[in-house]
Amino acid sequence: MSFFKDIEILKLKNGEMNLELDRVVIEKSLRIFIDDIEYIVILMSPENVHEFLVGFLFVEGIVDKVSDIKSIKIDEESAYIELKKENKINKNFFARVLGSSCGKGSMIYNEELELKGNISDGINNMKKLEENILYISSKLNSISDIFKETGGVHLSSLWSESELIFKYEDIGRHNSLDKMIGRILIDNVDLKDKIFFSSGRISSEIVIKCARIGINVIASRSAATNLAIELSKKHGITLIGFARGNRMTIY
Amino acid sequence: MSFFKDIEILKLKNGEMNLELDRVVIEKSLRIFIDDIEYIVILMSPENVHEFLVGFLFVEGIVDKVSDIKSIKIDEESAYIELKKENKINKNFFARVLGSSCGKGSMIYNEELELKGNISDGINNMKKLEENILYISSKLNSISDIFKETGGVHLSSLWSESELIFKYEDIGRHNSLDKMIGRILIDNVDLKDKIFFSSGRISSEIVIKCARIGINVIASRSAATNLAIELSKKHGITLIGFARGNRMTIY
Repeated sequence: MSFFKDIEILKLKNGEMNLELDRVVIEKSLRIFIDDIEYIVILMSPENVHEFLVGFLFVEGIVDKVSDIKSIKIDEESAYIELKKENKINKNFFARVLGSSCGKGSMIYNEELELKGNISDGINNMKKLEENILYISSKLNSISDIFKETGGVHLSSLWSESELIFKYEDIGRHNSLDKMIGRILIDNVDLKDKIFFSSGRISSEIVIKCARIGINVIASRSAATNLAIELSKKHGITLIGFARGNRMTIY
Repeated sequence: MSFFKDIEILKLKNGEMNLELDRVVIEKSLRIFIDDIEYIVILMSPENVHEFLVGFLFVEGIVDKVSDIKSIKIDEESAYIELKKENKINKNFFARVLGSSCGKGSMIYNEELELKGNISDGINNMKKLEENILYISSKLNSISDIFKETGGVHLSSLWSESELIFKYEDIGRHNSLDKMIGRILIDNVDLKDKIFFSSGRISSEIVIKCARIGINVIASRSAATNLAIELSKKHGITLIGFARGNRMTIY
């Protein structure tokens, strides 16, 4: 699988029209079954599907750790997840989750979801953090080949000071973060001094996902919404927007 | 209600940190009840909620026209929709829709959804269309005050040649299109010669929504995904990406 596909397009430039091959971002559907129940259909970039599934199950509140999952099978169109016996989804729970966490972001309303929030003792060197964040912002283009090539993906990256730990890309902003969270769980990464840098806008759902896994610092080149700012405060997360050049906004 | 809220932030610029007031985009949750059944929770910009609801019900396949809706009541946190007797959701249908159209874009898999596709006889003046699209692209910043001010919203606009008919903004790309589609239905706009111009990436769901209402031309400054391109072809929709300056890509 790949992020791209070459297709024939007509390119107009300076009034001249030419038939060319162009790279476009692949969008694929993945039908997710949990314990033989069809749970959801996700549109995504078909890369790092395993990490995505682990992260998705975690942020949806279906599992609390990797070992709650018995098996994951992935084929061209679907993913089949089996949970350990003690974690089996009962159908009532399933209906509730589907109803409330369904769709355009209502995970936030699942009040039973356990959120870690900030797991550090606070930031003891703000100056150093600011430097690191501006450095990361300046590096973002060079680490994202796919974004450069097609302009059509979102990037979620995890940093230790100014060092990139890993990055995940997807046509969906949420998917790229779910992939990153899946990898954090699989590798059991200590998040205490880590920075999450996103290529996109920070909305409430992004903050909830970060609070669920225990990310302390969220940074972006883009804006944050009021609800994202409120939730960050509530969970003790440092939220930084518009980090580019020599400026940033600390909410 | 408003798109904005002023909040206190710390602004770092050239190494100097100042406490300032900054405008942030408001993100609000709206719990939607249809015939007393809780259907979904949407995170959105709390403007033009009525248009949004009409458009949302239509693209979800719950209604086919405005007159299928008996009443809409909107309060601070929820919307209550009552359908006409003959359109009442039966719970089986509801469960199916919820299961398949739930979440990150599976409307595409609801095979019973009626799609109009291209309703015109094709484009008879491609040269003129190209000119209009580049003109629209050049005007996009000046018609979007909110985008300019906070950098945090998506814009969906409908044009007749080079004239703006209306535009809708929202923190969600899908929401802004649903609002526009709601308005098209309410005003019963003839879409034959109209151009839909989006500020964001064109994914498969955007194309499906356009095919459902009968939009013939989709244009954007950004990229389109492979699935969006395939679906546009299938439904006879002209899809144009990267329209900016003096260039564009015709898929």
